[in-house]
Amino acid sequence: MTGKLTIVGLGPGSPELTTPAVANAVRQASDLVGYETYLKRLPDLRPEQEVHASDNRYELDRARHALSLAASGRDVAVVSGGDPGVFAMAAAVFEVVDAGDPSWRDLTIEVQPGVSAMLAAAAEAGAPLGGDFCAISLSDNLKSWGTIEWRLVLAAQADFAIALYNPASKARPDQLGKAFALLRQHKPDKTVVIFVRAAGTPEAKLTVKTLGEADGTEADMRTLVIVGAETTRLIRREGRTPWVYTPRSEGAPR
Amino acid sequence: MTGKLTIVGLGPGSPELTTPAVANAVRQASDLVGYETYLKRLPDLRPEQEVHASDNRYELDRARHALSLAASGRDVAVVSGGDPGVFAMAAAVFEVVDAGDPSWRDLTIEVQPGVSAMLAAAAEAGAPLGGDFCAISLSDNLKSWGTIEWRLVLAAQADFAIALYNPASKARPDQLGKAFALLRQHKPDKTVVIFVRAAGTPEAKLTVKTLGEADGTEADMRTLVIVGAETTRLIRREGRTPWVYTPRSEGAPR
Repeated sequence: MTGKLTIVGLGPGSPELTTPAVANAVRQASDLVGYETYLKRLPDLRPEQEVHASDNRYELDRARHALSLAASGRDVAVVSGGDPGVFAMAAAVFEVVDAGDPSWRDLTIEVQPGVSAMLAAAAEAGAPLGGDFCAISLSDNLKSWGTIEWRLVLAAQADFAIALYNPASKARPDQLGKAFALLRQHKPDKTVVIFVRAAGTPEAKLTVKTLGEADGTEADMRTLVIVGAETTRLIRREGRTPWVYTPRSEGAPR
Repeated sequence: MTGKLTIVGLGPGSPELTTPAVANAVRQASDLVGYETYLKRLPDLRPEQEVHASDNRYELDRARHALSLAASGRDVAVVSGGDPGVFAMAAAVFEVVDAGDPSWRDLTIEVQPGVSAMLAAAAEAGAPLGGDFCAISLSDNLKSWGTIEWRLVLAAQADFAIALYNPASKARPDQLGKAFALLRQHKPDKTVVIFVRAAGTPEAKLTVKTLGEADGTEADMRTLVIVGAETTRLIRREGRTPWVYTPRSEGAPR
């Protein structure tokens, strides 16, 4: 097989946060496959480049379509936001390869990493992921809500900083509130919680709260939420949003 | 105060994985502060740009020096590999601000994110971090080994994929072997383990093992280790290293 499939991550939003490797893969591709919101972020394409846009929900169909195009000899880029390996298209593509046509295993498949949403969100606030941390998707489309609750409790017991992906959507308006209520049973009310909307774009908006006052309705699909560890600290500043960081150590700052 | 401090992440190695935003911050800086290994990776600098290299161990001294330069009106870039917010310089800088001269809180301090080592390592293998995951540093320089063991056990119970940063160094040759031994008590021997050395560079080397056979002496300072979840799967390929991915769902591939 001569076709090629590259799964690329555009980063969180601004072209200034897209790696040159990803920009090159997009430029070289004959076909670009992805969720229409991400495809709209691409720079001007050449007239001969074919764009295959789809709705956000049909990830496995989109992966199958991309693999078929590659198997027919095309040079296909599957486009994700953020990093393609974090709650995005890379796992969907390999899932389809695993269950699909054995000849797809002969294709050249590459993943080109990007700046993930949690890293961009953390950068807006300071360094809230500076110690050990975890990332949990609150979407129960592909796993049970029970699994999510069980991981939240263990993450609280481990005192990880917790990055919450997919905190809310129109179809799932209540998950984040339920997650906060559960975490309040296992972490102090004074735990730092940050909401970062549109991280890594000019419209980025950072809100700093405590777990005790955090409201699950304050997030939407473009928001990433980080719940701090017990060691996560605020640096207060006159008239400005405080900086938030998690020291690498367990003790007081030196 | 007119000085500025930007903490930048160069990404995992290749300049093709450094974002344009980071490249711009490096170009504009009057002073570049960092561990000498990372400073050597910078492109040609202008003759008037000052480089302040230091040993890897003196992170807080380096942060203090960078803040003093910024407070004197300079435009300082603090240079990290990977992402500066993940086990790197951003937390060190904010830790020093928190405990230091109150006037430092008036400085303009920005974090410019980068592709972290775990994302580059995951991309070399496929999509091993495609589901919920955590990142734990095995270095006990700044936290107790007891804390690390306790987090490893809870991460195993939560069935996170586990990215292990700082798996070994000359001063800490035994930590990874101890971590594998502990994880074998809580996870099946057939759990997938990957070692990725020099991820995101032309010399990248991927090794795929099971937890039962994983050997703690196979990693060095340039290696990132990912221990899979129970759902992490291999896609075997004739004569080539298998792809590794963690599906977003809990069930079998569709």
